[in-house]
Amino acid sequence: DLFHEVEDYFAKMDKKQSLAGKKVIVSAAGTREPIDPVRYISNRSSGKMGYAIAEEAAQRGADVVLVSGITNLPAPENVKVIKVESARDMQSNIEQYFPDSDITIMAAAVSDYRVKEVAEQKIKKSDEVMTIELVKNPDILKGLGEKKTDKQFLVGFAAETQNVLEYAQGKLQRKNLDMIVANDVSQAQAGFNVDTNIAKIITRDGQIKQAPLMKKTELAQLIFDIIEEKMNIKA
Amino acid sequence: DLFHEVEDYFAKMDKKQSLAGKKVIVSAAGTREPIDPVRYISNRSSGKMGYAIAEEAAQRGADVVLVSGITNLPAPENVKVIKVESARDMQSNIEQYFPDSDITIMAAAVSDYRVKEVAEQKIKKSDEVMTIELVKNPDILKGLGEKKTDKQFLVGFAAETQNVLEYAQGKLQRKNLDMIVANDVSQAQAGFNVDTNIAKIITRDGQIKQAPLMKKTELAQLIFDIIEEKMNIKA
Repeated sequence: DLFHEVEDYFAKMDKKQSLAGKKVIVSAAGTREPIDPVRYISNRSSGKMGYAIAEEAAQRGADVVLVSGITNLPAPENVKVIKVESARDMQSNIEQYFPDSDITIMAAAVSDYRVKEVAEQKIKKSDEVMTIELVKNPDILKGLGEKKTDKQFLVGFAAETQNVLEYAQGKLQRKNLDMIVANDVSQAQAGFNVDTNIAKIITRDGQIKQAPLMKKTELAQLIFDIIEEKMNIKA
Repeated sequence: DLFHEVEDYFAKMDKKQSLAGKKVIVSAAGTREPIDPVRYISNRSSGKMGYAIAEEAAQRGADVVLVSGITNLPAPENVKVIKVESARDMQSNIEQYFPDSDITIMAAAVSDYRVKEVAEQKIKKSDEVMTIELVKNPDILKGLGEKKTDKQFLVGFAAETQNVLEYAQGKLQRKNLDMIVANDVSQAQAGFNVDTNIAKIITRDGQIKQAPLMKKTELAQLIFDIIEEKMNIKA
């Protein structure tokens, strides 16, 4: 309603420019790996979480590049959006901006595998069974973790359906992250294409923050509050 | 602009109710076949062609059921929309309405194959290569062609990247269709997620109508003009 719109408007106006001068990269949405010109493999990521993060960063005054997979979401205000399709497209675009970035948040659901041999023409098959051979895609997040300097803050996501905390802690270590945001996508209110999330935010120092059910826009705020605290950013 | 909006409004008001009393089923958009709770196989159909057909049928006064795969398109006015995910979901919904239908237009891009064993949990893979085994989905259109009576009019689509006409003529025969709409999706203006199409409309009697580049909404009109002529429907 109008009351809340006006309230939101002033909340945005009031927002501290705590990230002014900072360069932020956000990846969002799912990538798509072609099988042939018509068919592809993808995943259920809607992009809502990553878009909310990019928007929040821009509202805090950061210089934001959003490298986005497949979604129909509108571009957030004051954000440079680069649309990509496959994991390798996403990688080359992120790596171009990474050396100069202060904060990189990988919220995209990147395809782990791509099709080994992409057909140039639509595949005509009459066989009762068919096999698709896949090969591993580059691990973008791990690559960034290996390259990052002490001044760069790197955040990953873990969308799991079981053993969420354990898996997320392992991923943070393995990929040299500063923070990981973990959520159980088998829960209806924390899943794909909904506006809410229930997340655990784990930082390099071992802190675990269990966030209650909240809007993805609110979780984006919480993520940056914790990043700013860990990076000792004072508004 | 406003002039064209007013013009469109009166064009719609004026439209003859040539399909009043007719039951029309339209399928649209791509289906999605799960690999696990997160990943899936799909195709690039946007649903624009099927949604335009459903809207045109409703404007001509038909009683329209639109069985829709994955798309963010808004429901057309005065159309009953049933949202489905997989090819088998689509089949069961269409077959429920088919016995009473007068005209059935299958514009959906139905997945030919589904994953043989869908994983209940998100697949964790560290292997360099991976294989997905697929099994054939039911051929919905062929099944309708086998069941249809002489009073029912059945229309298929052929979205190809090569040998379009030849393939479409074979499909019309093989699946016992009354009409097939063929387009070469490798052409930019006839491809996925665009508002235009360049189609060939082939009817059971061997007639081939080459439609020029036109909006998908205009092609929807042309399709019903030909259907009405072939069914001897007089407004």
